[in-house]
Amino acid sequence: MTRTYNIALIGTGYIGKTHAIAYQGVNVVFPETPRLVRKLVIDINEEAGRTFANQFGFEGFSTNWRDAITRTDIDIVAIATPNYLHAEMAIAALEHGKHVYCEKPLAVTVEDAAAMAAAAALYPGRTLVGYNYLCNPIVQLAKQLISEGRIGKPLFFRGVNDEDYMADPQTPHSWRCERHKAGPGTLGDLATHLISMSEFLMGEITDVSGHLYTAHTTRPSPSDVEVQLPVENDDIVSMVVSYKSGARGELSSSRIAWGRKNRLAFEIHGERGSILFDQERLNELELYSSGGPAHSNGFQKILAGPAHEPYGAFIKSTGHQLGFNDLKIIEVRNLLVGLESESRSYPAFEDALRVEQVINSVLRSADAGQSVNI
Amino acid sequence: MTRTYNIALIGTGYIGKTHAIAYQGVNVVFPETPRLVRKLVIDINEEAGRTFANQFGFEGFSTNWRDAITRTDIDIVAIATPNYLHAEMAIAALEHGKHVYCEKPLAVTVEDAAAMAAAAALYPGRTLVGYNYLCNPIVQLAKQLISEGRIGKPLFFRGVNDEDYMADPQTPHSWRCERHKAGPGTLGDLATHLISMSEFLMGEITDVSGHLYTAHTTRPSPSDVEVQLPVENDDIVSMVVSYKSGARGELSSSRIAWGRKNRLAFEIHGERGSILFDQERLNELELYSSGGPAHSNGFQKILAGPAHEPYGAFIKSTGHQLGFNDLKIIEVRNLLVGLESESRSYPAFEDALRVEQVINSVLRSADAGQSVNI
Amino acid sequence: MTRTYNIALIGTGYIGKTHAIAYQGVNVVFPETPRLVRKLVIDINEEAGRTFANQFGFEGFSTNWRDAITRTDIDIVAIATPNYLHAEMAIAALEHGKHVYCEKPLAVTVEDAAAMAAAAALYPGRTLVGYNYLCNPIVQLAKQLISEGRIGKPLFFRGVNDEDYMADPQTPHSWRCERHKAGPGTLGDLATHLISMSEFLMGEITDVSGHLYTAHTTRPSPSDVEVQLPVENDDIVSMVVSYKSGARGELSSSRIAWGRKNRLAFEIHGERGSILFDQERLNELELYSSGGPAHSNGFQKILAGPAHEPYGAFIKSTGHQLGFNDLKIIEVRNLLVGLESESRSYPAFEDALRVEQVINSVLRSADAGQSVNI
Amino acid sequence: MTRTYNIALIGTGYIGKTHAIAYQGVNVVFPETPRLVRKLVIDINEEAGRTFANQFGFEGFSTNWRDAITRTDIDIVAIATPNYLHAEMAIAALEHGKHVYCEKPLAVTVEDAAAMAAAAALYPGRTLVGYNYLCNPIVQLAKQLISEGRIGKPLFFRGVNDEDYMADPQTPHSWRCERHKAGPGTLGDLATHLISMSEFLMGEITDVSGHLYTAHTTRPSPSDVEVQLPVENDDIVSMVVSYKSGARGELSSSRIAWGRKNRLAFEIHGERGSILFDQERLNELELYSSGGPAHSNGFQKILAGPAHEPYGAFIKSTGHQLGFNDLKIIEVRNLLVGLESESRSYPAFEDALRVEQVINSVLRSADAGQSVNI
Repeated sequence: MTRTYNIALIGTGYIGKTHAIAYQGVNVVFPETPRLVRKLVIDINEEAGRTFANQFGFEGFSTNWRDAITRTDIDIVAIATPNYLHAEMAIAALEHGKHVYCEKPLAVTVEDAAAMAAAAALYPGRTLVGYNYLCNPIVQLAKQLISEGRIGKPLFFRGVNDEDYMADPQTPHSWRCERHKAGPGTLGDLATHLISMSEFLMGEITDVSGHLYTAHTTRPSPSDVEVQLPVENDDIVSMVVSYKSGARGELSSSRIAWGRKNRLAFEIHGERGSILFDQERLNELELYSSGGPAHSNGFQKILAGPAHEPYGAFIKSTGHQLGFNDLKIIEVRNLLVGLESESRSYPAFEDALRVEQVINSVLRSADAGQSVNI
Repeated sequence: MTRTYNIALIGTGYIGKTHAIAYQGVNVVFPETPRLVRKLVIDINEEAGRTFANQFGFEGFSTNWRDAITRTDIDIVAIATPNYLHAEMAIAALEHGKHVYCEKPLAVTVEDAAAMAAAAALYPGRTLVGYNYLCNPIVQLAKQLISEGRIGKPLFFRGVNDEDYMADPQTPHSWRCERHKAGPGTLGDLATHLISMSEFLMGEITDVSGHLYTAHTTRPSPSDVEVQLPVENDDIVSMVVSYKSGARGELSSSRIAWGRKNRLAFEIHGERGSILFDQERLNELELYSSGGPAHSNGFQKILAGPAHEPYGAFIKSTGHQLGFNDLKIIEVRNLLVGLESESRSYPAFEDALRVEQVINSVLRSADAGQSVNI
Repeated sequence: MTRTYNIALIGTGYIGKTHAIAYQGVNVVFPETPRLVRKLVIDINEEAGRTFANQFGFEGFSTNWRDAITRTDIDIVAIATPNYLHAEMAIAALEHGKHVYCEKPLAVTVEDAAAMAAAAALYPGRTLVGYNYLCNPIVQLAKQLISEGRIGKPLFFRGVNDEDYMADPQTPHSWRCERHKAGPGTLGDLATHLISMSEFLMGEITDVSGHLYTAHTTRPSPSDVEVQLPVENDDIVSMVVSYKSGARGELSSSRIAWGRKNRLAFEIHGERGSILFDQERLNELELYSSGGPAHSNGFQKILAGPAHEPYGAFIKSTGHQLGFNDLKIIEVRNLLVGLESESRSYPAFEDALRVEQVINSVLRSADAGQSVNI
Repeated sequence: MTRTYNIALIGTGYIGKTHAIAYQGVNVVFPETPRLVRKLVIDINEEAGRTFANQFGFEGFSTNWRDAITRTDIDIVAIATPNYLHAEMAIAALEHGKHVYCEKPLAVTVEDAAAMAAAAALYPGRTLVGYNYLCNPIVQLAKQLISEGRIGKPLFFRGVNDEDYMADPQTPHSWRCERHKAGPGTLGDLATHLISMSEFLMGEITDVSGHLYTAHTTRPSPSDVEVQLPVENDDIVSMVVSYKSGARGELSSSRIAWGRKNRLAFEIHGERGSILFDQERLNELELYSSGGPAHSNGFQKILAGPAHEPYGAFIKSTGHQLGFNDLKIIEVRNLLVGLESESRSYPAFEDALRVEQVINSVLRSADAGQSVNI
């Protein structure tokens, strides 16, 4: 008989909606997974909570996030609140025996993140962090091809994560530009995806040389366009890293790259071949295998399809393409599957802590002007 | 107060599952649409119906499709059965005052299709046909750019729809190869998408010169690989067409194009510019506008985003990409919106009838060895 | 000891310059080829001839093309004049024992072309026609891969040749628009390249269904923009063809395709794989081979390199790219090599005659409204 | 009356042949340039010199490079010898009043390079260094678009230069792997192109943080595959740089990137737009300009054509493509034009010295573990 899990979602913003869509979808797309019951949604604004619950089929709503923690009929607490609130909520939930499904990044400070990972180690609840890009079947294929030895030992990773949401110098100043609210800029936002992707594929980063750059040092005040306010964090971050395996990497991320919308791209060069990926075409992977005939070798463009689990749960035909929201459905599938299995799902708090440690190391490295160990 | 529609789905196969996913998703993604209630699912196999209902949250199930027609609490009848059953079911549903949402193609014969369109004209129920590729926001953008005059008057359409599901000569013989079961081959399958796309963007086709080609004239029997059975219909169809507007077109489709998985691609050349699309990258459109500076003009690659309604209902950020299943959600949205508005949604039975008329004309043309009028 | 050939070039226009560049280059790039001596250049304008000879190192010049035919120190006559002059000059040259290197298309009428081929059969001189796109090493690779069986038996060819030099409806009327001067429009110009490419790769075309379309039926007079003059030939030609091998094809060509500059593109679908080419990227070929692992198969992008003879004569490194002018150097190499070998170079007059026969058949087919044999 | 320059070429290896092809081509393609006379070629091997002279039309040959320096009928000395010989030859040539056309990189040590630049400043002869990729018309377009303000102020440059000529760990050890013969590895080879490209487009680099990585620390001895010899220099170099303008950059280069053949690629992000280039498609540039309509903005793919001087000197039609050898012809054109004009051609010795200074700074930075000023 299929097990049922009751979930409580804290936060009804944009990412909250993405969660709700995925909660609805998971049992439809993956009928063999445990049932997920939308039990409770939390928003400090009562009206927002009621509307959200209504719209997305949650049984109840509350304005007090502690209800999610204390109610005994809740199995999973999902945290989709501003980042600075993650730690308190997650730790409390773990203390109360809940499983925790937390949005990325884990926390605003590495200390908070460490406390969260410590709690996860201490209490029985399972954890999962919302680095949903790792759930892409074609990214999983990259990992699989490496495991199969198709490119030999991976030697080098070069990755970027660029968008242009702050590319316009006239985009007004906001909390994103303030260090005490947002922490680092691109480093704490886009780069976290890139770091998690890099560790997923290449293993642990052991040292980093980090460089931060603020191209637009002031931005117009949102209230008065004539007033320029200082930008306190980075537009662009550059990292040169070593991996535990001995491989090297370069990670680069920008929020001011005009024309780039979702360019989390990487190339991996190995002893025997290479792999290329660009998330603006999230259903494609390119593979070069050395050793083919000299006159007819080249990068192969692989289209996502049922050969790349769990693509086939969505569509039966190659080349028909998954979308962003489908990746979130896979993530929730992973969450549920993880609760039922011996081995925890990836990335748990301890994995996501590593991202925060790398970020912290980049900050230390940029300050010190030299490489630092993680 | 939001209106509610009760839907009955006939058919629980692959496309039935796609429907179910979309029914679940539509009110989540588009909270402003009328409520869609999964009232009833029909399968001749009782167990299949029960399981499906359970899995996808239908209130009830039945083994008799006439229940969907006769029950007074059903507003919409969705037909996802083998094609030869569409006509009888759809006409009966219309006669009983139901709205009908029918999978493509409309019917196996143009006579059946015409009868369906006639019924749709006679009875009050609204109709919609599942040419879901038209729902792609970036395809809608193509239409919009034409309307805005960005390429001037469209003069030429060149389209292909290629897959490789029959490319292997060793793929066994099946009902798909028999004329009395499948009707035409590629012409009745892949080409229908291409014809509907072409008419959507260019307007009515008025005459056609059609050419059919069976490359693999026999295939191994599924029961005995030593026995070759005759293939009775086309692997490849080529059409040269005229549009009512005076424009011309070429439509070509193959089910034996190795490496092609979902290549519904077109280019439209107009008086002042061109548009390119390839469905294997369904979130991209290319636009060339004449008149730019000679040294810096070229095809512009547009990434789907919130500027392309209703992309933003799924994701807030450009370049994050919709998938195939999202297009079906948009289609169901269109169905519901169409029920509430003065103007019917596209494509209704009368629009889909045109596809069948073009197919029929291709057959006549191929027989006659010359162009025929639609 | 290396043999020497003296060449006389008739015509100093644009294509004449391309010839001159290639004559200079051939012995440098291919030092093992016979020496080519620029003996004589002909232009009816004396000053133009003198300047050209000077600039491009021709030993002499003349205003009378018969000098090229009659001088006993001339081995090869190259014809780069307006097309309607080809036949008389070529036949005269052959009669005088010369080898003839003639620009494409062979002639303006199929009768002239047939007479040229007949003369070539009668007299000892070798012939070569300037379909230089066939000289591209990566196109030769396409041919080789087919010979090697990499895509199995070729079943279908779909080719286009699009440019936009007449796309602007305001481009003035010219001789190109007059049937008695230009003959067919796109069919006699761009399409000739496509037909020659198609026959080179797929073998002889045996029948064709042709469709002509004039989108811009009038154009402004070059002398008075207020006056519209009639366009007497085709902007777009569509052909559906059969090959002797039993394969089928579609050939399509347009001179009004905004944004297309040199898009001679084709795809070949075979029993076991596919090949793709687009001349706007003339150093790339894509190959799909069926039978690879399901999770990692896809089109391979092959970059031209020394593995593709004679690329290595130009550059030692893959991916460094040949240009258009290099293809002409290869063509002149082929001319010289052909003079020294038993087997004639391709395409000779008899091969180029076939292109004219296909063109003629398209015209007949378009008139008749049905397929015709070549 | 057109001026004539006599050139002496020292070195008949691979790059020497490229020179010879370009010397032959320059006056054909650019008839308005001064005449270039192939006066003398030098090779220490007499037979090699004779053959080369013969093949490429040099009037004479010699085994003593000092002949090129001392003969009074020589105007230009071209140096295409192993890099460690550049300095002595170039300085001697300048001292004797010659113009010097030297292959890249300028020298093996920054001291030699500085001495060469000093000599160039002292003596009247003009200098040019063979960074031929800068001669690409589409790269010049990138520069022009920046000058026109099409992307606003450039803020960030991200460049790579990858090949795979050492990607196979079984590629035998050679002088390339020895520090005292080759100097740095990728840094002294591929990266020099990238640095020169970066400075050409972005201006002077003022500081750099450099990281070197040797992935394959040993390679088999060329004489005995069982013996592994140490690799003494870098396979991969990573640089984070600042420009004088205040902009930042990342430069990365690898000689072990399987599948990459000529990937000198960059992206430039500016205040108002972005530019993309990939040298494996050397006739294309992509441009994103902010401010277009939200629903139809994207990267524009510009094809090289006559609008990009001096493309039109080679071919009259856009999209027909230049090749690698054509870039060298443009370079020789620049050499000759530079001799006739007030302003020197780029890059002269002083410009190329900067590349060596950056290389030297990378070495110092890698040693010091921190950024250094150039």
